[in-house]
Amino acid sequence: MDKNNMKIRLDFNNMLEEYLGDKGISLKQIDGLKNKIEKANKEMVTKREAGKMDFRNLPNNQDDVVKEIKQYVNDVKDKFEAFVVLGIGGSALGPMAVHQAINHPYYNEVSREKRGGFPKFYVADNVDPEKLTYLFETIDITKTLFNVVSKSGQTSETMSQFMIVKKMLEEKMGKDAKNNIVCTTDKENGNLVSICEEEGYKKFIIPSGVGGRFSELTPVGLLPACMTGVDIEELLKGASFMDEICKNENIFENPAYMYGILNYIAMEEGKNISVMMPYADSLKYISDWYGQLWAESLGKSVNNNGDKVNTGQTPVRALGATDQHSQVQLYMEGPDDKVIVFLGVDKYKEKLVIPKSYENVPSLSFLGGESQNKLIKVEQMATEYALMESGKLNMTLTLPEVNEFTIGQVLYMFEVATAYAGELLEINAFDQPGVEAGKNATYAMFGRDGYEKKKKEIENRPVKKEKYII
Amino acid sequence: MDKNNMKIRLDFNNMLEEYLGDKGISLKQIDGLKNKIEKANKEMVTKREAGKMDFRNLPNNQDDVVKEIKQYVNDVKDKFEAFVVLGIGGSALGPMAVHQAINHPYYNEVSREKRGGFPKFYVADNVDPEKLTYLFETIDITKTLFNVVSKSGQTSETMSQFMIVKKMLEEKMGKDAKNNIVCTTDKENGNLVSICEEEGYKKFIIPSGVGGRFSELTPVGLLPACMTGVDIEELLKGASFMDEICKNENIFENPAYMYGILNYIAMEEGKNISVMMPYADSLKYISDWYGQLWAESLGKSVNNNGDKVNTGQTPVRALGATDQHSQVQLYMEGPDDKVIVFLGVDKYKEKLVIPKSYENVPSLSFLGGESQNKLIKVEQMATEYALMESGKLNMTLTLPEVNEFTIGQVLYMFEVATAYAGELLEINAFDQPGVEAGKNATYAMFGRDGYEKKKKEIENRPVKKEKYII
Repeated sequence: MDKNNMKIRLDFNNMLEEYLGDKGISLKQIDGLKNKIEKANKEMVTKREAGKMDFRNLPNNQDDVVKEIKQYVNDVKDKFEAFVVLGIGGSALGPMAVHQAINHPYYNEVSREKRGGFPKFYVADNVDPEKLTYLFETIDITKTLFNVVSKSGQTSETMSQFMIVKKMLEEKMGKDAKNNIVCTTDKENGNLVSICEEEGYKKFIIPSGVGGRFSELTPVGLLPACMTGVDIEELLKGASFMDEICKNENIFENPAYMYGILNYIAMEEGKNISVMMPYADSLKYISDWYGQLWAESLGKSVNNNGDKVNTGQTPVRALGATDQHSQVQLYMEGPDDKVIVFLGVDKYKEKLVIPKSYENVPSLSFLGGESQNKLIKVEQMATEYALMESGKLNMTLTLPEVNEFTIGQVLYMFEVATAYAGELLEINAFDQPGVEAGKNATYAMFGRDGYEKKKKEIENRPVKKEKYII
Repeated sequence: MDKNNMKIRLDFNNMLEEYLGDKGISLKQIDGLKNKIEKANKEMVTKREAGKMDFRNLPNNQDDVVKEIKQYVNDVKDKFEAFVVLGIGGSALGPMAVHQAINHPYYNEVSREKRGGFPKFYVADNVDPEKLTYLFETIDITKTLFNVVSKSGQTSETMSQFMIVKKMLEEKMGKDAKNNIVCTTDKENGNLVSICEEEGYKKFIIPSGVGGRFSELTPVGLLPACMTGVDIEELLKGASFMDEICKNENIFENPAYMYGILNYIAMEEGKNISVMMPYADSLKYISDWYGQLWAESLGKSVNNNGDKVNTGQTPVRALGATDQHSQVQLYMEGPDDKVIVFLGVDKYKEKLVIPKSYENVPSLSFLGGESQNKLIKVEQMATEYALMESGKLNMTLTLPEVNEFTIGQVLYMFEVATAYAGELLEINAFDQPGVEAGKNATYAMFGRDGYEKKKKEIENRPVKKEKYII
């Protein structure tokens, strides 16, 4: 494979004044950010060197980890019918995105042979009591490997699932239960690593400097991927290939930087919505993964100086061509408040020809002899064209094919773009202080020790009025 | 069943000044809309009577249709292993939402017995060549019933799928192929009704005055629902029950009207995002269905007077508790640009207890002896509380249980709310002129007769620059 033939391409023509007129972004505007850009470029290098952007090392520092994962998968995969991730947020969204991208769209329904000999795959990322109960009805837990993923080991959702599963397994299997659990957690901090040691669970380590939403290329994502037949070495090679591209200081040659800059300008101009619209079912969950990355990283109340800024762009998942029949009316005619990012594919894995028929029906005959491949591509171009004509900012990221190497590039490019946008916004893209309030309220309502004050505060909140419940 | 115990409840306390301070909506603001509200109330009655809101009659005028659907399902269901909807937009989103709400979450993976004897269920709502090819690998098409859904019979996506499936079936089954196809279409207009007559397909009718996004309670939704064991009479009874409630002219007793008014005020104040966040996996696709309804109905460039308005609110799907680990950081700290609507459930179908364990680990011990049911509910309340505390507009719609009767209410309430919001905005909530541009561009690129001018226009568009593709 010639890597350069597999390079993903960011087309930002339709973001620019040259195509959108005064609704577009001008080169002058970009040039006006020169100082900011220089500063951001420098920060990207400095922070990486200082170990403050450890996700950037993942493409190139995991030879041993990859070897260990492959060995483990090879040892255990035939013993299990199903593999279940118990994880939430980044621990779920990344694995689902890569699985959907690479594997059979009806993976769990086809024969094991069609799955390449790998077990079925589930992600239990919610504490919905119905969903989990019905999962236990669907699988044989004694033939299931559960992957408990929590860096801190105190994620209530994941750890409560683990407690349930552990008991069920032990009731059925006694001491052997331990073989049905594998953990992915921090090297030394948190509860889960010590639990692993006590119980004798196999464990994989999440590097301490990598947060949940940047963790898909750690064992958080690599283990589930490998367990379902994804070539994780290619995934990392794709990321590594993109890492070289993302080192380029020239923003007109660096797609991650350019993505960050154009969105930064758009945000400043009030575009508070970031739509990601893949034209391929296989890329559908990439938008969900991106949704966390972009929202949680950039949605911040204060900047690095402590000034109130309330930044952030709300990610919206759409799917082409499907959502042309759901969302595009709004994108065309509604408020001018979005940046729309299409994900396109040059070559789909299959070709599906539309047979010639109904030659006398004008609205059908033009389809005969064509293919679904052409239809979806033309619809993508037509939507892009219509949006451009009506002055809506849009970009297109194209994958030559959907495979591990291109998906590795996509993941890594958006991670760098997010970090870079964080630099431009001068915020901390790597924390999430805003979720603490909800967590603390949860602990308080459960009467956890140390949260008595919060509990009192909640109990004293204004009572809801019945008349406002109808 | 006492219907009143199954009434869904809209809690809008947290939209109001009394709870959110100056970030909330005041009763005075609502009162200030008195004239507008009176006018909208009147329009809702007048338009219904004039046959311009035919979706409102669906709960009560379909006895014969229901009978016919039930009879047909009863006659054919045992002959098929799978039922596939070929439809897009409203023809797909409604059926998926109801299926997910009522049926087993791993419906296609469990035994036919656990499915109540009903066939497997698929929705092919995209023209992705991979997805459809792999579907054919997953099912036996000779044992599959395909439901072709298109009101006009000229939906390119659906009709091209139909052309493919028809040929495949005829090659395998000859004349018997016709028994594997059932159509849902207009009574007299369009291609599909005449195709049905020529080919001898069984057909069901979409009432002419009901558009795609309002069609879930027509055979578009009722046939797939019935074919998977959903009690469609209860669904309609729920809608009918809500219809009575929605006739109330007192906005403080009419949840649909109040929903429209509060969102209208929020939109006027720049809240251009409508988040729907169910705390139940079963309600996940209700947000997707709502996403089309709200976006396509209210996203309009001109009002009834022809003035440029560019209205609309962008719907965002979230899922609690999962997306607390993905989106809530942004909702808490990002721009103040949203109305967040929680969907809650009083009583889940299952209870899942968390066993006592790790009593010495404070971050885990408080969970032992509790249940997933309590955890998800407490997390919902905690998130609602945290958002209220930080002044973010939010509402909660609670279903006593998720069943046909409550889902019927939910669907119908949001439909009325959407129509009502359209009246307040003084726009046409029932058309979608903005999608024509993309459709026409598609036809032109395919070289369809009559689109020569458009084709030339597209060919003459500004050429993209290579340097802006990186």
